[in-house]
Amino acid sequence: MSEKLEQLKERLGEVADLGRAASILGWDQQVNMPPGGSEARGQQLATLSKTAQEKFITDEVGQLLEDLKQEYDSADTDEAALVRVAARDYGKARRVPPAFIAEQALVTSKAFEAWREARSKSDFSIFQPHLEKVVELVQKYISFFPPADHPYDTLLDNYEPGMKTADVKAIFDELRPKQVKLIKAIASSKQVKDDFLFKKYNEKKLNDFGVEVITRFGYDWNRGRQDKAPHPFETTFSVNDVRITTRYEEDNPLAMVFSTMHEAGHAMYEQGVNPAYDRTPISGGTSLAVHESQSRLWENLVGRSLPFWEHFYLVFKKLFPSQLDGVSLKSFYKGINKVQPSLIRVNADEATYNLHVMLRLELEIGMVEGKIAVKDLPELWNTKMQEYLGITPPDDARGVLQDIHWSTGAIGYFSTYALGNLVSVQLWEKINKDIRDLEEQIRKGDFSELLGWLRKNIHQHGQKYEPQKLVEMVTGSKISPKPYVRYLTKKYSEIYGL
Amino acid sequence: MSEKLEQLKERLGEVADLGRAASILGWDQQVNMPPGGSEARGQQLATLSKTAQEKFITDEVGQLLEDLKQEYDSADTDEAALVRVAARDYGKARRVPPAFIAEQALVTSKAFEAWREARSKSDFSIFQPHLEKVVELVQKYISFFPPADHPYDTLLDNYEPGMKTADVKAIFDELRPKQVKLIKAIASSKQVKDDFLFKKYNEKKLNDFGVEVITRFGYDWNRGRQDKAPHPFETTFSVNDVRITTRYEEDNPLAMVFSTMHEAGHAMYEQGVNPAYDRTPISGGTSLAVHESQSRLWENLVGRSLPFWEHFYLVFKKLFPSQLDGVSLKSFYKGINKVQPSLIRVNADEATYNLHVMLRLELEIGMVEGKIAVKDLPELWNTKMQEYLGITPPDDARGVLQDIHWSTGAIGYFSTYALGNLVSVQLWEKINKDIRDLEEQIRKGDFSELLGWLRKNIHQHGQKYEPQKLVEMVTGSKISPKPYVRYLTKKYSEIYGL
Repeated sequence: MSEKLEQLKERLGEVADLGRAASILGWDQQVNMPPGGSEARGQQLATLSKTAQEKFITDEVGQLLEDLKQEYDSADTDEAALVRVAARDYGKARRVPPAFIAEQALVTSKAFEAWREARSKSDFSIFQPHLEKVVELVQKYISFFPPADHPYDTLLDNYEPGMKTADVKAIFDELRPKQVKLIKAIASSKQVKDDFLFKKYNEKKLNDFGVEVITRFGYDWNRGRQDKAPHPFETTFSVNDVRITTRYEEDNPLAMVFSTMHEAGHAMYEQGVNPAYDRTPISGGTSLAVHESQSRLWENLVGRSLPFWEHFYLVFKKLFPSQLDGVSLKSFYKGINKVQPSLIRVNADEATYNLHVMLRLELEIGMVEGKIAVKDLPELWNTKMQEYLGITPPDDARGVLQDIHWSTGAIGYFSTYALGNLVSVQLWEKINKDIRDLEEQIRKGDFSELLGWLRKNIHQHGQKYEPQKLVEMVTGSKISPKPYVRYLTKKYSEIYGL
Repeated sequence: MSEKLEQLKERLGEVADLGRAASILGWDQQVNMPPGGSEARGQQLATLSKTAQEKFITDEVGQLLEDLKQEYDSADTDEAALVRVAARDYGKARRVPPAFIAEQALVTSKAFEAWREARSKSDFSIFQPHLEKVVELVQKYISFFPPADHPYDTLLDNYEPGMKTADVKAIFDELRPKQVKLIKAIASSKQVKDDFLFKKYNEKKLNDFGVEVITRFGYDWNRGRQDKAPHPFETTFSVNDVRITTRYEEDNPLAMVFSTMHEAGHAMYEQGVNPAYDRTPISGGTSLAVHESQSRLWENLVGRSLPFWEHFYLVFKKLFPSQLDGVSLKSFYKGINKVQPSLIRVNADEATYNLHVMLRLELEIGMVEGKIAVKDLPELWNTKMQEYLGITPPDDARGVLQDIHWSTGAIGYFSTYALGNLVSVQLWEKINKDIRDLEEQIRKGDFSELLGWLRKNIHQHGQKYEPQKLVEMVTGSKISPKPYVRYLTKKYSEIYGL
């Protein structure tokens, strides 16, 4: 390795360490921190991101990158990828003043606390002034960059490198009518029963079942742990310390099981990245959509499939004999796949989920364009919920306040959830070609070949390839809605006898 | 406030944030981290301390301090104290070359591993070459500083600012014969029974009892939490997030209760510092001895007192009826105060504890002076144990290898444990003059006036005053062994009928 590359890696390793330290502080904030700790924690996080930024955007790093870009121009090597991703991030980071980063960290840490209180009291007015500041900061952020085709492109690119607002719109425009049509067909057919899912389920037993499932999936507990938090999430402190959180919801107890599979899907991606990439800019997943493809694959394509429950239902029913008394495997399978327009995105079924995302994307674009005022969000939210899903939230806690994202400044993020759904099925079609007896393996509770395939084709590469390129390399096609529509149509035609 | 002071506080605030971030990572390492995480965590911690150091020892900070030292020369204000402490730390930090810090980190991390192995195999020869390097580094460290009255002064000053080796020796020389005499008198009197303390005690019930006690003491759970860890410790993330850990020991179950009181004593000190000092160099306790005076006050002067158990024994006995069957309050009180020369410092009783410390101090001074060779330590240790406590360790694991300190380079630390004991009783005498019915309050389980006194006289000041000055301000005397000897003599005369 060239001496300059060695120097670059040393500098970037320190930047990575500071970023990971911030992740640890963020995890602690959600999982452990006593209420009194929040103000100081905001300052600590602000200092960490400011310091990481300072260490990254030095002229020295810029010069190293300039020299190395020529040396590692177009080769398909790890080193070339490292230099390319570092140069991309450096170019972005140099545009954003350190003072802005510190301000953003401070504002969002307060906004997060306000959101938590607002949601618990279902009072948007508590969150509103904080969200207004967040939106102002986001607009200011965009102003640091050269004009793009659409101002929202600048945000989207941070979560989904290379993706344009117009691409997403085109994909969603193709997808929306097909999903709406499918939902209507389902609505006018015979409904499935799922009342047994909403009985009282013991939290500890559900938790233990979730732990057993993800252990079988291949989540490595020697390099991770699971804790309770207000919101389920995955977070990475190194390739060898990848943690997940879970929660119990009184009124939707089984969500605990599915969200555990979901977060484990994210975590196994991170655990599977080439360890040599740790502390470099190509560590971790390549984009949020590809990340979400992994979580959704385990949660939905595996976890809500019939073969999966053919294996696990007996165990599960033994844990909850009274709740599932008289409920056959088929009825259970149909119940957990019931299509029902609902209020909460994270609990939405596969047929309606993407519509929740489209709603948020439109609101975000409106806010970024300055056409939607924060104070009007609750009403707009409710109007669109009625338009897309035919229901209206009874309060803001179950409406505009349900998601954590905006409170953390993560505007530009949501569409990746829907894109992830699409990618998960694109991969699934390919996997089923490569592993002909996959269904049979799942029916036996054996996930090792599946995880091996994902490790080899997706996980190990980290950020070596941009998301669209990776998806194309592996599936032969860029991100496309067609496989997802095929999948939904087949699955729900069987369940609902369409 | 002057603009320069504002600038200084901003710089030092960031340094403090990085230090606190390191504390959070350290806490997580002990409390939560999965095994796989350790290598990356080491790198993250190294980067945090390197970065904090870089931010601290800049010429800019040096110039600010130079200018401000004149402006805030001798006034007894918070600002003057801040400048004084910052200048002191800056002066020290600038003398130590970064290359030395890196070497020290490397040597001590290897020495720590070697110590762990040596202790588990009870084989000093494994540790010896590493400790020799540690001692060499410590001597080199001293050489960066101007000659002091005694080379050991330079080390001691890092743990107990302003304290001289000669002061500590004088105090210990006065204390030693009196403690030895007392122990001999106890040894030749009728022994107390304590077999009931070593039965099986339920961990959860012990833990809950400890939690109840420290809640009564006034530990603020809104600004702290308690977790399990391999070793009990207190750690501060801000004045509003001060955490403690506890552990259960099979062969010494009640240690859980007393160590919980001990750590809560440290934590209440940190929770009581003037919040305006947070993120400045005068935050936190003023020295290790004063810190230890707080933990020992709650653990021993309160927690091992008769009035305390007059209040709590009924509750405690209800939790453990079979273990304490037929054990009267008086017998219990005598049992938890049994004097018994023993091998392990951390388990030593109040009458013998300081002798363990004196032994270590003498060996450390000898090593620093070059008069004691590392290879001779085991024999010297055992000789001194026989001389001071009348017992000889059967192996080095229970002798010279028992403490972690030397392996981490922490030479100069031990004497603060004994000094803390002395200060705790100096304060106790003063408190009992100021709160005439303190015993009666404790008998009622009311600690509010006691905590209020400590807050006002000790806690709030943080590092505003150097330890000797603070102790003198509050008690009218510098650190002195007399009150401790009075206390020991009175307590044990009653218990042992001397």
